[in-house]
Amino acid sequence: MPERAAILDAGDPLAPYRDRFEVPQGVIYLDGNSLGCLPRATPARVEDVVRGEWGRDLIRSWNSAGWIDLPRRVGSIIAPLIGAQPHEVTACDTTSVNLFKLIAAALALRPGRKVVLSEPGNFPSDLYMIAGLERQGLATRRLAARDHLKDALDADVALLLLTHTHYKTGALFDMAALTRAAHEAGALMLWDLSHSVGALPVDLNGCEADFAVGCGYKYLNGGPGAPAFAFVADRHLAEVEQPLTGWMGHASPFAFSDDYAAAPGIEKLLCGTPGIIGLAALEVGVELIAEIGVEALYAKSQKLSEFFRQCLVEAGVDLELVSPSDPARRGSQLSFRHRHAYAICQALIARGVIGDFRDPDILRFGFAPAYLSFADMADAARHLAEVLESGEYEREEFQERAAVT
Amino acid sequence: MPERAAILDAGDPLAPYRDRFEVPQGVIYLDGNSLGCLPRATPARVEDVVRGEWGRDLIRSWNSAGWIDLPRRVGSIIAPLIGAQPHEVTACDTTSVNLFKLIAAALALRPGRKVVLSEPGNFPSDLYMIAGLERQGLATRRLAARDHLKDALDADVALLLLTHTHYKTGALFDMAALTRAAHEAGALMLWDLSHSVGALPVDLNGCEADFAVGCGYKYLNGGPGAPAFAFVADRHLAEVEQPLTGWMGHASPFAFSDDYAAAPGIEKLLCGTPGIIGLAALEVGVELIAEIGVEALYAKSQKLSEFFRQCLVEAGVDLELVSPSDPARRGSQLSFRHRHAYAICQALIARGVIGDFRDPDILRFGFAPAYLSFADMADAARHLAEVLESGEYEREEFQERAAVT
Repeated sequence: MPERAAILDAGDPLAPYRDRFEVPQGVIYLDGNSLGCLPRATPARVEDVVRGEWGRDLIRSWNSAGWIDLPRRVGSIIAPLIGAQPHEVTACDTTSVNLFKLIAAALALRPGRKVVLSEPGNFPSDLYMIAGLERQGLATRRLAARDHLKDALDADVALLLLTHTHYKTGALFDMAALTRAAHEAGALMLWDLSHSVGALPVDLNGCEADFAVGCGYKYLNGGPGAPAFAFVADRHLAEVEQPLTGWMGHASPFAFSDDYAAAPGIEKLLCGTPGIIGLAALEVGVELIAEIGVEALYAKSQKLSEFFRQCLVEAGVDLELVSPSDPARRGSQLSFRHRHAYAICQALIARGVIGDFRDPDILRFGFAPAYLSFADMADAARHLAEVLESGEYEREEFQERAAVT
Repeated sequence: MPERAAILDAGDPLAPYRDRFEVPQGVIYLDGNSLGCLPRATPARVEDVVRGEWGRDLIRSWNSAGWIDLPRRVGSIIAPLIGAQPHEVTACDTTSVNLFKLIAAALALRPGRKVVLSEPGNFPSDLYMIAGLERQGLATRRLAARDHLKDALDADVALLLLTHTHYKTGALFDMAALTRAAHEAGALMLWDLSHSVGALPVDLNGCEADFAVGCGYKYLNGGPGAPAFAFVADRHLAEVEQPLTGWMGHASPFAFSDDYAAAPGIEKLLCGTPGIIGLAALEVGVELIAEIGVEALYAKSQKLSEFFRQCLVEAGVDLELVSPSDPARRGSQLSFRHRHAYAICQALIARGVIGDFRDPDILRFGFAPAYLSFADMADAARHLAEVLESGEYEREEFQERAAVT
């Protein structure tokens, strides 16, 4: 397979972009869906923000460096990646906090309906943020398996909240079909794009989605705990209300009035003072992904994952695939089930192949197409085959669970 | 006054700490209560996080670099500055988001009571976050002037929410007396310490406060939009519930279960994935302030502001002081009223004296004692006298309002 990998790499139009990232020597990084690699341009940008904008220009940078516009500016670069207009997206807070804002906003737009529908096994924070509003007495959480979601959409449902690419299996929802089903039931649609954005094209406006959120530190390469983003469709911007009414969401924050009046546009989603260093780092990652283009990224990611599967077959590895086998029906990842998934993951990490484990028995490999090569696929498959064949994952050192798995 | 300033600087035990900060040449920075100066150690720490922990160690840093413990670690360094135990404080999200969590938590602890009492003119986000819960139908906002707060504390009040040091005037509340009054009325007490922490000693547990929040980017020098912190008194930790129930607040985040179960300790205040770069920068600022010590900082800040006032008197400046004239009754700032406050502020900035303006007519000078000298006070007073005397603030260039004032 190394020969085939070399041919594929030679024909890969995205190959030059690998040099735009810090990919550590000796590491095959199949965890870009958890924390994306560092863009090479980021350290200098962060240093400029810290030493120049903060250290030298201090408070003046809110105007002179445009800090005050940074949430909207980063949002506007994310917008075309997700099929949104620039004024419909802002970057701020965390995915979880933005979920709370938009679930609450949807409930306020559907008085008399309290049910927020999702699927069991959705990313926990999605489910937990519904639970937070449920604890407030404002929502009722309803979960239905993905095949039964349409049946569960009745006249009580205010909002359907789904994650486009499943974090564990990589399975994709049909965004247009589900959004249509939600609307037909009189409900609104909120998409969590955390495992999609930057890896595959998303067309929020094309399928008339109402709301979306997503993560900045996965395929957008914004850095650990990077700010998240939020989308509100233009047709809702004027009327939407969210309860985290902090001063940065005010129509005139610097009037310092006692009474809240929401900003007319997407700024109404802002709450407290945005984290500037994190936003600046995120901007670099987002600009780079926008430059490469999500269509090209998605095309390569499908080739990468299919090639990885072929390498496994040739190496005689027979693992239970829990991701859809059709690349058109999954995001940029492959997940396998194995009862020793945790230890296998640790044994691979010891060899420099970093994937990750998801409780209880999932081995998850993400294929960030911006910086991975086909040679990486061949090498990773070989390591996985050796780990399984040798049984080295049974060593005691690979059994002990770390705080973060 | 330059001679007196030189004598005071020579006798200032904190003078050596100025070199631990980047204080730009030609700038007298009287706005550390809006955005604190850059600690000299911060850029290297941030670079290490970006290039080393993120770039080289990638996802492994959640364990190896202790990212997962960073909110608690930073919280534990803040704790002694505010009279708290280390396990009662965490650093996360923004002040506004933390206000929402703790206002909601207080309401849940006082079923049957819906009123959240504060004062008009409190920092807007404090008032707006109450309004957000009011819009949800869960709270009723009541405002009473500070002299009438005790009268307004009746059996409907669930929570008294006040800012210890007023952002505009610098006036201090008697924390012990107000907390006692709230408790006597059966209400809980939440202190916003944004303009106090790092500038003066605060004793939350000494006055039996229930909750507190505070800002990381003012006197803690954590950088623009730094993460904030939140305090929950130990006696409430077991039972307190807050609605922003994100995955990082779960008892077992990496079990990825569908149902939320709050972490037993202060981690239950966490919501989404914390911003690591911002937290790391904040940690440097907090460590430095803790090293200097808040008692020493407060002693110097009182001397600085009193000396500034003397310099103004000697320069013949007669401005209306809106801060308490007794330094024991104010935080680390002096605010003056002038109908041309905005233009005067701009004229001073043009001379390198950076204070700030607060709508509609307040000129605000913060005295961050960690990096200001008595010579700065003498120079700033001279510039202010010259700006007023010359009328240069009347120039057209100083009238135009920027986006951020």
